[in-house]
Amino acid sequence: MSEALNRLAQVIESRKAASAESSYVASLFARGMNAILKKVGEEATETVIAAKEDDDKQLVHETADLWFHTLVMLAARGLGPDDVLRELERRFDVSGLEEKAARDK
Amino acid sequence: MSEALNRLAQVIESRKAASAESSYVASLFARGMNAILKKVGEEATETVIAAKEDDDKQLVHETADLWFHTLVMLAARGLGPDDVLRELERRFDVSGLEEKAARDK
Amino acid sequence: MSEALNRLAQVIESRKAASAESSYVASLFARGMNAILKKVGEEATETVIAAKEDDDKQLVHETADLWFHTLVMLAARGLGPDDVLRELERRFDVSGLEEKAARDK
Amino acid sequence: MSEALNRLAQVIESRKAASAESSYVASLFARGMNAILKKVGEEATETVIAAKEDDDKQLVHETADLWFHTLVMLAARGLGPDDVLRELERRFDVSGLEEKAARDK
Repeated sequence: MSEALNRLAQVIESRKAASAESSYVASLFARGMNAILKKVGEEATETVIAAKEDDDKQLVHETADLWFHTLVMLAARGLGPDDVLRELERRFDVSGLEEKAARDK
Repeated sequence: MSEALNRLAQVIESRKAASAESSYVASLFARGMNAILKKVGEEATETVIAAKEDDDKQLVHETADLWFHTLVMLAARGLGPDDVLRELERRFDVSGLEEKAARDK
Repeated sequence: MSEALNRLAQVIESRKAASAESSYVASLFARGMNAILKKVGEEATETVIAAKEDDDKQLVHETADLWFHTLVMLAARGLGPDDVLRELERRFDVSGLEEKAARDK
Repeated sequence: MSEALNRLAQVIESRKAASAESSYVASLFARGMNAILKKVGEEATETVIAAKEDDDKQLVHETADLWFHTLVMLAARGLGPDDVLRELERRFDVSGLEEKAARDK
């Protein structure tokens, strides 16, 4: 559903078998869910702060950090981006929404 | 880069022209960036809480809410998922990703 | 240690026995810890957003909301403001504070 | 209104004139509001995570961190704990609440 997110999820997954010293993601897995969730919360706050400033690059940077740490969180639970994207497609019933979006124009 | 996220971003984009009464996303745009950011923070907290429970479906649900509201935030700034995905691909030192990034240029 | 916070904590405590319909605090206790924590996270985000704006009154308002919901959270665990204030006094290396801490023992 | 919080606020205030190297609080003031707010968000998340665990001491520790960084945030804006406590007392109209609390028993 998302080539880019799935490639990233594969990289994250491959870090599960790595030693904590060998990569940042491996160290997060080693420290456990609470350490991962602290990063999710931290990056969410940094995203909010960045969105109150004018620097688009910084906002993209912080949002990337936030998405990335949610992918690590999902991986720690055996979940992946497709689980989230399926939920979003199901919820927004995209084909139906596109029709409506088309009518809105 | 992500078909699913781009379709969703298009739906969100189409809501910018809609009346606040016609859709939830339109009402968020009408209320402005602070209202959008409150939702980003709220959904981040709900994601953290869900990750401390055993219910995978709930965790996927909250993560979807979080990603969705970050897409609305990006759209409010004229940005989209590809900006974030490009940043993530650029950042990760994966040969396959780097090759693709090179070809994209 | 704080007359104001202790009075507030007493009010919160008294709501534990009240029906969920009778007060907002009673309804939070009835809905449980996750509902209380969602409010803590939500008010923290609103405090951060308010601090990026110029309105002092709004910042005070949001900080009050945040402190209040942390008091509800503490009460749900049988803790109170003095537990937090003792920790803060213990932690700070201020001679006057240390003297008092010594006398308290 | 709170002897403990006011003493702490005085300590924080005294750090405004200190060099960034001399104390943690001075370094926060030197780094500016965004750095302070990142800490507020971070500690709020750590408080939420701690509240999902059984360790009361950890919960008190994280709540102390959260309150402390909100005091630094207030000080950076020329505000203090009494501004927040006055808002809480005004809002809860404590004497009135105590009467009601008494009737609830």
